[in-house]
Amino acid sequence: MVEQFKLKPEESVRVSEKALRATVQAMFQKVGLGRDDAALATDVLVTADLRGVDTHGVSNLLRLYLERYQNGNINAKPNWRILRESPTTATIDSDTGHGIIITPKAMEIAVEKARKTGVGMVTVTNARHLAMASYHAMVALKHDMIGVCMTSSPPTVVPTFAGKPLLGTNPIAFAAPADKEPPFVFDAATSVIPDNKVHIARRLGIPLLPGWLADDEGRPIMEPTPAPEFGKHKLVPLGSVREMGSHKGYGLGAIVDILCAVLSNSGFGAMRPRMTFAHYVAAYNVEAFTDLPRFKSMMDEFLRTLKSTPTAPGHDRVLVAGQLEWETTQDRLKNGIPLHQEVIDWFKKACGDMGIAYNLT
Amino acid sequence: MVEQFKLKPEESVRVSEKALRATVQAMFQKVGLGRDDAALATDVLVTADLRGVDTHGVSNLLRLYLERYQNGNINAKPNWRILRESPTTATIDSDTGHGIIITPKAMEIAVEKARKTGVGMVTVTNARHLAMASYHAMVALKHDMIGVCMTSSPPTVVPTFAGKPLLGTNPIAFAAPADKEPPFVFDAATSVIPDNKVHIARRLGIPLLPGWLADDEGRPIMEPTPAPEFGKHKLVPLGSVREMGSHKGYGLGAIVDILCAVLSNSGFGAMRPRMTFAHYVAAYNVEAFTDLPRFKSMMDEFLRTLKSTPTAPGHDRVLVAGQLEWETTQDRLKNGIPLHQEVIDWFKKACGDMGIAYNLT
Repeated sequence: MVEQFKLKPEESVRVSEKALRATVQAMFQKVGLGRDDAALATDVLVTADLRGVDTHGVSNLLRLYLERYQNGNINAKPNWRILRESPTTATIDSDTGHGIIITPKAMEIAVEKARKTGVGMVTVTNARHLAMASYHAMVALKHDMIGVCMTSSPPTVVPTFAGKPLLGTNPIAFAAPADKEPPFVFDAATSVIPDNKVHIARRLGIPLLPGWLADDEGRPIMEPTPAPEFGKHKLVPLGSVREMGSHKGYGLGAIVDILCAVLSNSGFGAMRPRMTFAHYVAAYNVEAFTDLPRFKSMMDEFLRTLKSTPTAPGHDRVLVAGQLEWETTQDRLKNGIPLHQEVIDWFKKACGDMGIAYNLT
Repeated sequence: MVEQFKLKPEESVRVSEKALRATVQAMFQKVGLGRDDAALATDVLVTADLRGVDTHGVSNLLRLYLERYQNGNINAKPNWRILRESPTTATIDSDTGHGIIITPKAMEIAVEKARKTGVGMVTVTNARHLAMASYHAMVALKHDMIGVCMTSSPPTVVPTFAGKPLLGTNPIAFAAPADKEPPFVFDAATSVIPDNKVHIARRLGIPLLPGWLADDEGRPIMEPTPAPEFGKHKLVPLGSVREMGSHKGYGLGAIVDILCAVLSNSGFGAMRPRMTFAHYVAAYNVEAFTDLPRFKSMMDEFLRTLKSTPTAPGHDRVLVAGQLEWETTQDRLKNGIPLHQEVIDWFKKACGDMGIAYNLT
């Protein structure tokens, strides 16, 4: 059933990573970003596409971001600054600059602090959307550190027993380096599904599965249900119902709100205006705890143990977080990134409107 | 259905917190602990009982712990030491000393580091059981800091698509201070249910609910099922099945194993001998990020917003993590801690065997 949500080959066109990067970067520069910021913003989106996280790549997010730059919701030339700082921490006011640009920078600050002290932790207030949370966690991997990223998003998730949404999908991303194995990269909403799945289901006309949504009064819907209008949907926390642990998904979502939004003094999701966010990143220096080569080789052993386990009947293999995304990246680097024809059409028109030469296909 | 697992008043006897503490401490001293360590170990167990976390209090754990002290699994006089240290981190070898004693000490070290640098993070290797994880996270509350505690436990949880258990229930505890409201205290296994629920269900002869267990071949059981023999049970990750997000519960469990066990070089759960553990605690100094009074008053507002939300039909109120435990503590401090008659009988016999005056009832 989960496969229904994937892009079908016959509806898509493969474009090269290089051409996609050039086009997206040119678009970001057209709405006022400097070259470096535009390249960074492009890398965040195209990395999601390379990893097969199509919901958080150019297809859904680029047009929203360009619109938000143009209508002033996102500031193209933010004067971001550090409000408070300690040897291990910083609180950044991003001046409504884009989350996809400030968050990797926040992570670099966290990494630098972790290099000096062992741990670095940075919150970001006055913030905008950060796209794929694992991108920012993975910044730490380049430095052989463990990375964490969370974000407090606008409320669409109904707490256990509540009648209306009060928490965002509040994802948690976590990246840890291995040696020969691809790194462990976890990235998941604390709700059963992310908001975008509702969007996709409605576009494709397929029902949502039991345990994914709440009804108008907040009750989890435990049978297949048509996708509601996007924006009117109510999600349920991981666990779906109390008996199956929805209070745990709800609690994890609340933790994300505390670390991102209360700790940065941004206001938790339910008290902030719509389309505003608050972020949290952390870097842990492995060398501060144990020898790096020892850690990385034990990570290999951990991941191989999981992947080589005999499966339950009916399954091909046991996966680990980040494995499919790593395999998809190898494929897409070589064979191009599949985009839906609707997205190709949008690029053609948008390039025309913005005075950029279209050369994706 | 969840209520079935609670202790029934007609089967229990209320004992005073004070008498219980005196008895438990005397027992710990009899197996070789010094007075301070015995008092600390007692506080961990009795705090669980006060909070209504009966699974992790004296009823289930005390007899196991005494047995493990007596058979040498737990070292009563450990020579614990710091293997590696940085301004923010420490890795402790607990010398097979008790987890319920070393973990609060590890947390005090984390708090001290957080006071100086902003964040403190300590792992514990060569470790034993730590009982209720939130006890250790809550140590940070006394210092107005945020506390985190995780533990890597022996494998009983079957990863998504796998045929056998490879992860422990690997709980995550998180405590954050508020001002006038009780603190936010989250404490949950990354599986749908903890191991002990299987134990209780078997003792009470009640079935386990759909989505709680896997069958012998690793398939999630989605109907009520009799409790298997304890130790032969297979749990499923939070989310229960792939379609409802079990890969998220599985990933969170793996993160706990990485932070507790790989980072401390203990060996992950599936590679360690049975009855061994690895722990992780962290303290975040709120003042390093924002003004403490501001944080605490926003926590109040967050918790009140959640608690005052209108409910979905059929529910009395929306809870927040730690609320019920706080209310139960007020009741039990005043009216005593209910213990099952079987537990009372055990205390009588054990006190006799150990030469301790019995005075609980």
